Amino acid sequence: MVRVAVAGATGYAGAELVRLLSSHPEVRLTILTSRQFAGRRFTEAFPAFAGRVDLLCEEIDEGRLASEADVVFTALPHKMPMKIAPALVGAGVRLIDLSADFRFRDAAVYERTYQPHAAPELLARSVYGLSEVYAAEIAAAAIVGNPGCYPTSVLLPLIPLLREGLIEPGGLIADSKSGVSGAGRSPSLRVHFCEVAESFKAYNVAAHRHAPEMEAVLAREAGGGVGLTFVPHLVPMSRGMLSTIYARPAAGVGATRVRDCLEGFYRGRPFVRIRPPGFIPDTLHVRGTNVCDIGFVLDERNRRLVLLSAIDNLGKGAAGQAVQNLNLMFGFAETAGLDAVPAAL
Amino acid sequence: MVRVAVAGATGYAGAELVRLLSSHPEVRLTILTSRQFAGRRFTEAFPAFAGRVDLLCEEIDEGRLASEADVVFTALPHKMPMKIAPALVGAGVRLIDLSADFRFRDAAVYERTYQPHAAPELLARSVYGLSEVYAAEIAAAAIVGNPGCYPTSVLLPLIPLLREGLIEPGGLIADSKSGVSGAGRSPSLRVHFCEVAESFKAYNVAAHRHAPEMEAVLAREAGGGVGLTFVPHLVPMSRGMLSTIYARPAAGVGATRVRDCLEGFYRGRPFVRIRPPGFIPDTLHVRGTNVCDIGFVLDERNRRLVLLSAIDNLGKGAAGQAVQNLNLMFGFAETAGLDAVPAAL
Amino acid sequence: MVRVAVAGATGYAGAELVRLLSSHPEVRLTILTSRQFAGRRFTEAFPAFAGRVDLLCEEIDEGRLASEADVVFTALPHKMPMKIAPALVGAGVRLIDLSADFRFRDAAVYERTYQPHAAPELLARSVYGLSEVYAAEIAAAAIVGNPGCYPTSVLLPLIPLLREGLIEPGGLIADSKSGVSGAGRSPSLRVHFCEVAESFKAYNVAAHRHAPEMEAVLAREAGGGVGLTFVPHLVPMSRGMLSTIYARPAAGVGATRVRDCLEGFYRGRPFVRIRPPGFIPDTLHVRGTNVCDIGFVLDERNRRLVLLSAIDNLGKGAAGQAVQNLNLMFGFAETAGLDAVPAAL
Amino acid sequence: MVRVAVAGATGYAGAELVRLLSSHPEVRLTILTSRQFAGRRFTEAFPAFAGRVDLLCEEIDEGRLASEADVVFTALPHKMPMKIAPALVGAGVRLIDLSADFRFRDAAVYERTYQPHAAPELLARSVYGLSEVYAAEIAAAAIVGNPGCYPTSVLLPLIPLLREGLIEPGGLIADSKSGVSGAGRSPSLRVHFCEVAESFKAYNVAAHRHAPEMEAVLAREAGGGVGLTFVPHLVPMSRGMLSTIYARPAAGVGATRVRDCLEGFYRGRPFVRIRPPGFIPDTLHVRGTNVCDIGFVLDERNRRLVLLSAIDNLGKGAAGQAVQNLNLMFGFAETAGLDAVPAAL
Repeated sequence: MVRVAVAGATGYAGAELVRLLSSHPEVRLTILTSRQFAGRRFTEAFPAFAGRVDLLCEEIDEGRLASEADVVFTALPHKMPMKIAPALVGAGVRLIDLSADFRFRDAAVYERTYQPHAAPELLARSVYGLSEVYAAEIAAAAIVGNPGCYPTSVLLPLIPLLREGLIEPGGLIADSKSGVSGAGRSPSLRVHFCEVAESFKAYNVAAHRHAPEMEAVLAREAGGGVGLTFVPHLVPMSRGMLSTIYARPAAGVGATRVRDCLEGFYRGRPFVRIRPPGFIPDTLHVRGTNVCDIGFVLDERNRRLVLLSAIDNLGKGAAGQAVQNLNLMFGFAETAGLDAVPAAL
Repeated sequence: MVRVAVAGATGYAGAELVRLLSSHPEVRLTILTSRQFAGRRFTEAFPAFAGRVDLLCEEIDEGRLASEADVVFTALPHKMPMKIAPALVGAGVRLIDLSADFRFRDAAVYERTYQPHAAPELLARSVYGLSEVYAAEIAAAAIVGNPGCYPTSVLLPLIPLLREGLIEPGGLIADSKSGVSGAGRSPSLRVHFCEVAESFKAYNVAAHRHAPEMEAVLAREAGGGVGLTFVPHLVPMSRGMLSTIYARPAAGVGATRVRDCLEGFYRGRPFVRIRPPGFIPDTLHVRGTNVCDIGFVLDERNRRLVLLSAIDNLGKGAAGQAVQNLNLMFGFAETAGLDAVPAAL
Repeated sequence: MVRVAVAGATGYAGAELVRLLSSHPEVRLTILTSRQFAGRRFTEAFPAFAGRVDLLCEEIDEGRLASEADVVFTALPHKMPMKIAPALVGAGVRLIDLSADFRFRDAAVYERTYQPHAAPELLARSVYGLSEVYAAEIAAAAIVGNPGCYPTSVLLPLIPLLREGLIEPGGLIADSKSGVSGAGRSPSLRVHFCEVAESFKAYNVAAHRHAPEMEAVLAREAGGGVGLTFVPHLVPMSRGMLSTIYARPAAGVGATRVRDCLEGFYRGRPFVRIRPPGFIPDTLHVRGTNVCDIGFVLDERNRRLVLLSAIDNLGKGAAGQAVQNLNLMFGFAETAGLDAVPAAL
Repeated sequence: MVRVAVAGATGYAGAELVRLLSSHPEVRLTILTSRQFAGRRFTEAFPAFAGRVDLLCEEIDEGRLASEADVVFTALPHKMPMKIAPALVGAGVRLIDLSADFRFRDAAVYERTYQPHAAPELLARSVYGLSEVYAAEIAAAAIVGNPGCYPTSVLLPLIPLLREGLIEPGGLIADSKSGVSGAGRSPSLRVHFCEVAESFKAYNVAAHRHAPEMEAVLAREAGGGVGLTFVPHLVPMSRGMLSTIYARPAAGVGATRVRDCLEGFYRGRPFVRIRPPGFIPDTLHVRGTNVCDIGFVLDERNRRLVLLSAIDNLGKGAAGQAVQNLNLMFGFAETAGLDAVPAAL
């Protein structure tokens, strides 16, 4: 059994990690941390877990983490993971970080969007945790920078097509829509029920900090300049994310080649489903799972490829993919702890 | 492995059965039936299951059911289960029926509320499937009449108190609230999103057919006349049920005795949680599970006991309890197939 | 034109007052106050009003209120209205207070539930603003203590029946359900979208501070001891309130007498609709209006009268009734500013 | 008073017409038609209107419509309006049609998307009812083809920019999101509460029949070939529509010119609000109104203009704009019957 700690266990991504890890067959949960609930039971924060998770929440203590855990998931605000990473990695503990701190190879790119990086020397030992794409590197990594939810939903459909040159790297548009849990559990007017119900809106239009993350990966994959306009929206639902992505197909590329490329790339991967023609992804179909459903329509008249991808923002968009990365890092079955059959609703 | 069929697999309760049974360690799903989807894949009805459930839907064929299944779950409209039950039971197949057809010991009571009973001779071999209360009888039964969702939520808190005489059997009130999935998957104006959102209403006030079901069980338990006014309501949410139950405490009964009684009765039962003082059950805490959360407040000034119970109407209120009954019938661990850790949301 | 100020304009009840008053034919809005938005436009708090309401929010200034307004609506937290009331009333300004500060005739009752009363001498000049019941007193009052939303929904169906002696005054139960806007606009975990969606729960069971308000009025109406168990619940919707009320009919009282009593009492009152037999009130039918829909079912077998009342908690439950009281106080048509035809959804 | 009939009054758009027209100061509602509710009161279909609308629903009878109405609103399925239009127009009755039957100047374009046109000779007397753009023609028209909800939200931001040549006419993308009421009131699995809640999905990707309607208008306005990829989505809310539109700015065009163009075009128009920089439209801000909120962001790095427009699909997207067109046709104040102050929620 691998000993696992979750730092930041009482946010939504943290709680989803606790849910997945507490029934993972190869895992023993040893430590949960939470500033807000330190000294109290995890079940005070989430009564749903009563009778199933018995741990107390603690303050973060790098020494304790290093001695009690083989791997630490950090579901913390940006900036905090890079502060504790050196001590953990130095002690041989592996890190799966759900913040942005270890998603960039180039500290300068991180710093343009976020803040000065506190541990740039660790970036060389960290890998971007898009599981299906970078599985080999993830397996060997000391640190996995788990992708953001938006990037996961945008990159999974685009990378195979860019690698094969089936779409043009410029002029990409990602119009993404996220459920409210993506905004976290901290109360604010923005997540007040009455402000969300009957409301649909965009935010951070062409200015969201997930855009540089996507662009950095896409540029690496395309081998050069990529242009992406990214517009996130908020949907009045708790969990789920759908990205509608617009790309120019390369000359001569038709629907069959697009389909062959996507199906080929993801053949045998249990968590990406390329949906048959005429089938449109729906967040309800992936709720509570680690699955990414991908569909597409080629608008021949306008020579525009419309890709659609649905994930659960807390699943494949956060905790699910993090556990998948754990499985890759420790040589477990890729689906270990992630094979719950989805619910119809 | 027990061979299991689900008849009526493409309603919400049926799909929840498929979800639970397809990851049950002791079960092999052999047959799914659906009038509407006969000849098509189950995943056409519920794309969420793509890659996880590969069965075709079939028409009901008693012969095939008898030869391919050791136990049949019937998630069918009232009237249909009692038609196929004789052939199945005659062939030695056990039946877990989610309709009302086998919930009553007395055919006359059934017939007052529903219709002429087609197989009254089988009522003697059928048991009311309230798992925690009738576990021994369920284990031995040929047929289990799985309780309705409302009765489950009302009976679990009341039966221990009635048995011990801590509340008066007359003047009971159950004010219950159900999520929309309880109304089934068939389209109607009543379940149209726009008619449900921003709507809260009662229906079948003091005239719901679950009332006689509750009264029959309560009368048996109380050993005499019980009076219950039952008012169901519809909540703008998909899954979940909360019952607020009002009872008169017997003379001299205080909160401690109520608590001792409930905690004693359900001690060691994995799916009923008696919540600590001050903790109010919430449907979100049991969503997707087979758990029933029970809390209470004694209004001393008015000598009124307010009991609150929360279940998932598709879980403990339908498919979850049905699987729990399967476990009791076949001697499996009571939590087999039902031990998924709940989600925070 | 009456000059009107709204103190506390940027909460939900305040904004609903602004909406109603800004199209009221006899009203000129002169002052809006808001601590949080002082110095900024009201439309920054509520962009929906852009182009329709042009006022700046101000800090509360009794002098300015007294010189610029003939009547002040206070949609402020309890305690604040009673502090500014003496100055306003002393200057001849009338007050319609949506807090609890002036809802009680007896300061001691208020103080048991809330806090020391700062202006008990004004209670004699204040009237409980249940419009249909106390219209004459309201017309002459210096101060109207506008009823709480729960009391409005519970008292309107009960008072006529109590006055005529058609129900017993003891053993009353009010099982009430409120939309989330009743919890106010301040962010908290309790109103976080993800905690509310798919959640139904009770709160303050038999301990809500609206219970003493109801009991005081009911006791006055019944001329003696009344017993009421009150249990409020939270519904995942923005606006709306439904109360399900259980009462014992007096000996010999049948459905016809109940109907005659209710219809007689509310005949000609534009905002209370006694619904025909078989018709169950639904919050969607009164959303955005000042209407209270009342229906009932007599459970003959258990001799229990089930009354159902639906209001909009921000309408008849708060701002709507406050404007209705304005109309009564100034001799305007009772429906002035309140006659918008309701929407289907 | 103009005598007005609403044909198809018991769908959502029809009911919204009834709501608006029943409080319109220049209108007398004379006839409501409904196949489903013929012979029954309108309030049986929509109990919210009890006490406010007293009409019976009738079958469609062209003779009666012609003799009792000066103008008929047809909120009917496509095909039906063009059948009754000749008789009505022949009798001098004006027609405001909410179907697609009179939205196209060229019958061939209509027929490619819909079906053979039954009254092509009337197309010359019909005008596309985008109120702000074609006000003069609407004023004089015998028939107004009221725009679809999606086209309204897409055309209002695009037309001023195309007319001034500030954006390229090719490569346009409209990623639109609609509330569920846009799917109509007929029950179907697609609008079942449980299938909609926690679901976000696209449908009719690059194949929706509103696309030809938009393209025909855009081509006319741009004076030539326009390319538009249109992808509609369904949002789990009742009312509201947001379109996110992607366009290429013409060379040298910056944010100031875009703003000047939009503000100039809509100056003085009461129902289009060009939102200030940094303000993102939100469907909640226009719910229940005839307002269209428009905002934009220029993604300079990618030279992409992102336009955002929010309307109420039943308001400016259907019934509201239809009433606005009535006002234009009869010389009433443009805001007559449409000036309700919006609600905060």
